[in-house]
Amino acid sequence: MKPNSNSKSQGQHDDIQVLAFDIFGTVVDWHGSIQREMAVLYPDVDGDAFALAWRDGYRPAMARVMRGELPWTLIDDLHRQVLDEILPEFGLSHLDEKQRAHLNLVWHRLSPWPETVAALNRLKQKYILCTLSNGNINLLTRMAKRAGLPWDCILSAEVFQAYKPDPKTYGGVARVFDVSSREVMLVAAHHDDLEGAKACGLQTAYVERPHEFGLGRPKDVSPRLANDFHAHDLNDLANQLGC
Amino acid sequence: MKPNSNSKSQGQHDDIQVLAFDIFGTVVDWHGSIQREMAVLYPDVDGDAFALAWRDGYRPAMARVMRGELPWTLIDDLHRQVLDEILPEFGLSHLDEKQRAHLNLVWHRLSPWPETVAALNRLKQKYILCTLSNGNINLLTRMAKRAGLPWDCILSAEVFQAYKPDPKTYGGVARVFDVSSREVMLVAAHHDDLEGAKACGLQTAYVERPHEFGLGRPKDVSPRLANDFHAHDLNDLANQLGC
Repeated sequence: MKPNSNSKSQGQHDDIQVLAFDIFGTVVDWHGSIQREMAVLYPDVDGDAFALAWRDGYRPAMARVMRGELPWTLIDDLHRQVLDEILPEFGLSHLDEKQRAHLNLVWHRLSPWPETVAALNRLKQKYILCTLSNGNINLLTRMAKRAGLPWDCILSAEVFQAYKPDPKTYGGVARVFDVSSREVMLVAAHHDDLEGAKACGLQTAYVERPHEFGLGRPKDVSPRLANDFHAHDLNDLANQLGC
Repeated sequence: MKPNSNSKSQGQHDDIQVLAFDIFGTVVDWHGSIQREMAVLYPDVDGDAFALAWRDGYRPAMARVMRGELPWTLIDDLHRQVLDEILPEFGLSHLDEKQRAHLNLVWHRLSPWPETVAALNRLKQKYILCTLSNGNINLLTRMAKRAGLPWDCILSAEVFQAYKPDPKTYGGVARVFDVSSREVMLVAAHHDDLEGAKACGLQTAYVERPHEFGLGRPKDVSPRLANDFHAHDLNDLANQLGC
């Protein structure tokens, strides 16, 4: 469905060349992946609460960098700082360096949503597919290799030395590919990310991920008029884009 | 064959995680591709001489940037500067903007050597494959998409804001992937590139491309002791690496 247009769903995407994807929550299921891994590694811990607490620390950590309190920091290192902070709350203070390092890399091992890989392969026939994530290049590359995510190019906050929603990131995609901002569409499950992209002139596609925060905590996924596309999942987006 | 070791060819690569590939000449045939395209577009021009003249302008143009005479410049733009310089020599001064822009993008349309794609798919089963080229991200991404080059990640001088052989580029690959320099191997058909990588502690694989400059101008492809591997082509490298 296209909330902001009476035209056919194929009506406005003829000029899109590049689809830039948010990753955590949009392409991969961070909550479910971390919960499943915790159930294996530390079955006595509440994996649901642990995943939420870890993710909760992510934005404040980025904000410290953006305010200049910390130097430029890769997400792998921010994840580790947050991990070290939350381990005591979950009775895991005893984890040694090797265990902490291994657990931190769960973010490299996140699983795609069920339709992700097939849908990306459809979209790839018609568009350049790139990541646009605050995740660092190493994280995104190893995740893609493990999960079979068929990116044409991995772009990251690391390339632009700025986290989303800094305009450097959205505008950077258009500059890298030498296209106008209208020729790039951000695909994301988060309205604030899409708003940042829209402010830079990109097209935007919202993807419903009602269970991003777990099955028991459904998210409001109602359409917003500002977005060019609103898709139930990535297959629905591929349908709407005529792939 | 491994010129610098009496051990079996599988002897020294157990610690390699990342293969970083030079592109022009190593992975794709710039000379033949440009010659073939010129034969179609401008059949009266000596495509062999034209390809060589264009490529000859590449290093001096990068050198101007590296000396600070020009600001940081993408290779697409350096290619265009050189193109504009050589067109009069070949009786093509009359080309208009659209024709020049189209011709300049022949570097996005270079064809792989015959075994390249199959060999990269073998190597990809075991290693992270990335580009490490002075070509810009847009060029490398569009080339890969058209030619079916299965990179896990596209790294470029553009990411490091430095051209090879600047140590920032070779060291940058190891930093991006959070591995030691010994865990990265540069694969290239040019000894100066491999020397730059070796100086930064990377492993090195030389690939023979005797016809990089055309069938009538065979290149000396004899082994040098400094390299860890010496391969006839990328399939030979995959064999030596046990892929």
